[in-house]
Amino acid sequence: MKKSTGSSPKAVVLLSGGIDSSVTLYLAIRQYGYRCVALIFDYNQRHRRELISAKKIAKLSKVPYYVMKISFPWGGSALTDERIKVPHKKKLSGSHQIPITYVSARNIIFLSFAFSLAEVAGADKIFIGAHTEDYSGYPDCRPEFLRSFQKSCNLGMKRKNIEVVAPLIGLNKAEIIKKGGELGVPFEYTWSCYQGGERPCLHCDSCLYRQRGFKEAGREDPLLLKKDRGARGK
Amino acid sequence: MKKSTGSSPKAVVLLSGGIDSSVTLYLAIRQYGYRCVALIFDYNQRHRRELISAKKIAKLSKVPYYVMKISFPWGGSALTDERIKVPHKKKLSGSHQIPITYVSARNIIFLSFAFSLAEVAGADKIFIGAHTEDYSGYPDCRPEFLRSFQKSCNLGMKRKNIEVVAPLIGLNKAEIIKKGGELGVPFEYTWSCYQGGERPCLHCDSCLYRQRGFKEAGREDPLLLKKDRGARGK
Repeated sequence: MKKSTGSSPKAVVLLSGGIDSSVTLYLAIRQYGYRCVALIFDYNQRHRRELISAKKIAKLSKVPYYVMKISFPWGGSALTDERIKVPHKKKLSGSHQIPITYVSARNIIFLSFAFSLAEVAGADKIFIGAHTEDYSGYPDCRPEFLRSFQKSCNLGMKRKNIEVVAPLIGLNKAEIIKKGGELGVPFEYTWSCYQGGERPCLHCDSCLYRQRGFKEAGREDPLLLKKDRGARGK
Repeated sequence: MKKSTGSSPKAVVLLSGGIDSSVTLYLAIRQYGYRCVALIFDYNQRHRRELISAKKIAKLSKVPYYVMKISFPWGGSALTDERIKVPHKKKLSGSHQIPITYVSARNIIFLSFAFSLAEVAGADKIFIGAHTEDYSGYPDCRPEFLRSFQKSCNLGMKRKNIEVVAPLIGLNKAEIIKKGGELGVPFEYTWSCYQGGERPCLHCDSCLYRQRGFKEAGREDPLLLKKDRGARGK
C-alpha cells in the first residue's frame, strides 16, 4: 500500500459522500498513492444530507476539498425537482431503464469542473466512482462515455494529458464494500439514501442497493448499527 | 427570414453579452427560426458588466433566460483571479498562444449545462458563438473540440440527438458584425471589455478585436458613440 507524499502525483476525486465515491477516494490515496483534492457538489439535491458525509469523509482522509454550489433550475429529476417523488420500493426491480432519479448531464457537469480544477492544480488524474453493475441505467456512468469524454476534454484544454480513472467500473456493490473494508473506509459516515431524511428510508433504490451490497459482502452496515447514527457527523 | 412560433423547434443559446453570442442568438431566432432559451453564466468574472448586457440582449430579443451562478475558486485565469492582470496593449500581437484570459474548461462547463437544459427542455440544438478566427488561442472554441464534445455528451445522456451549432465558426469579427447588422443586433448593448470597468478600456485583447472588427466592417461601434453609453442598459 502506497503512502502519498509531497512529491506524489496529484489527482482530483469526485466525492458525493456515498459508498462508491468514498471507496474511490480511499483507493486513490491508499492504493494508488495520489495526493488528492476532493470536489463535492451542492446542487440543491433532495438528499443534501450526503454533503455532510462528503465533507466528513474528506476530513477523515485528510484531503482538501472544494464544495461547488451549482443548480439545475430546469428540474426534470426526482433528486432536483420537488414535484417528482423518489420511488418507494420493497425490492430492486432489476430493470435497466433510466430511473427518475437520473439528473440530466450530472456527471458531464461534475467531470467538466474536475477537468478545470485538474488543469489548474496540475493533477494528472480525475477519479470517479462510476460503475455499471448497479446503476446500469445511468448513461453517464458507462465506460464508453467516460473514455469519450476524456478525449473531448483534452481536445478543448491547454493540457492534453488528463485522464479519467474509474477504478470501480468492473465491480458490484458487494465487491466495492469489501474493497472499502480493506482500505479502512469509515462506512458509518457515508450516505446513500435519496429521500433526504435524517435517517435512511431503506426503500429507495439507493438504500436497497446499499442493503443488498452489505448483505452480499457478509458485513453489517455500520450506519444502521445504532439507531441514532442517521445524523452523525454533523 | 423565418419567424419562430410555438411549434418551432427549440434551441439553447449560450449568451455572454458579447458580440459573438449576441449575433448567434439573433441568428438562431431570426435566420434559423428557433424558439430559444438563453443560458447566461455568472462565474464571478472580472467583467461582470457583461451580465447586464447579456440580460438586456435576452430581453430585447424576447427569449427566456437562466443566469447560472458558478465559480472557479481555483483561479488560474486573468478573468477569475484578481491576482492576475488583464494585459494592457497598444495593438493585437497576432500570437496564436493561449492567452492569460483563458479560463480552464469554461466552454466545457458551459456546454455541459446547456446539454442538461436541452435534454430537459426538449431542445434539439445548442448554439454557441465560438469562432476560430480571432480567438484561435482558445482550444475550447475549435470545431474539432465542439464535434467531439457533442458526440461524448450524447453518449452520456438519455437523449442522443442534441447537436452543437457554431454558426460563426468560419467568420472573422468584421463578418460577424456585418451579419449582426443585417439581423438588427443592438450592438450598443453588447459588452466586450475584459477589464471590468463601467466603460470599455480599449486596450485589452477583447476591446482591440472589437475595434478592429468594427473598423474592417466599415461601421462605427454604437457603444462608443456616446461617452455615457458605458453604463447603459442597467
